[in-house]
Amino acid sequence: MRLTSFTDFGFRALMRIASQPERAFSTAEIADEFGISRHHLTKTMAALANAGFLTTRRGAGGGAMLARPPEQIGLGHVMRVLEQDQPVVECFRGDGGTCAITAECRLKSYLNEAEAAFLARLDAYTLADCALAPRARPLADALP
Amino acid sequence: MRLTSFTDFGFRALMRIASQPERAFSTAEIADEFGISRHHLTKTMAALANAGFLTTRRGAGGGAMLARPPEQIGLGHVMRVLEQDQPVVECFRGDGGTCAITAECRLKSYLNEAEAAFLARLDAYTLADCALAPRARPLADALP
Repeated sequence: MRLTSFTDFGFRALMRIASQPERAFSTAEIADEFGISRHHLTKTMAALANAGFLTTRRGAGGGAMLARPPEQIGLGHVMRVLEQDQPVVECFRGDGGTCAITAECRLKSYLNEAEAAFLARLDAYTLADCALAPRARPLADALP
Repeated sequence: MRLTSFTDFGFRALMRIASQPERAFSTAEIADEFGISRHHLTKTMAALANAGFLTTRRGAGGGAMLARPPEQIGLGHVMRVLEQDQPVVECFRGDGGTCAITAECRLKSYLNEAEAAFLARLDAYTLADCALAPRARPLADALP
């Protein structure tokens, strides 16, 4: 079973931002630090802001910060938000997909249970449980 | 979270074959019945045979049959076989991926737990729990 890189990048960004909750991070900074696509990360950051996990400040020193303490950001909640458009199999899609078995399928309910068990396990943890260690600021940042 | 169509088709094929365990199914027949790619399904059927879920007979009336009673084919086992090359995120890959966080990442262990919970839920069921209903044979099949 796979998560999208959209989700993967979203978790990495949150873990990094939670490492220094007192300051704002630009998308470019996080993308460069992790060697991932800025364009791709921008969409993920927007989704995290829309969902109320991040708040953004404009202007000099602006960027994204956690909108709530990391203890209040459940990992299962983050997963549900980021993976909401990723059906486990095609019959989980909003339109029901085209599988010919759907009407008599019993596997679907077992897969539903399995997905719920996956998410419930993540519900046991919050972003505070996986925040990265703070990093030393570059000297330039510390100058007035 | 998504499963591959490889896995999806594998489950559909097993559910169909389990509906009439006494007879052999050709890949073409299953692909046509479900409106899925024969080429794609052929690879899945080979994986199911390699894993010991299916046995194949050559020649007239040949095809694939269950290699064991459906009660002895656990859905978690099938999932592990079909999804074995699908890492949840890149650090689950055999080569460890390229994520810069890996060394200090705590999320990875939570994702491992979540994946295990997903599979454990499926371990509660076997193919016998989701075999499709038998279908009436076409008249031509019933003739001597």
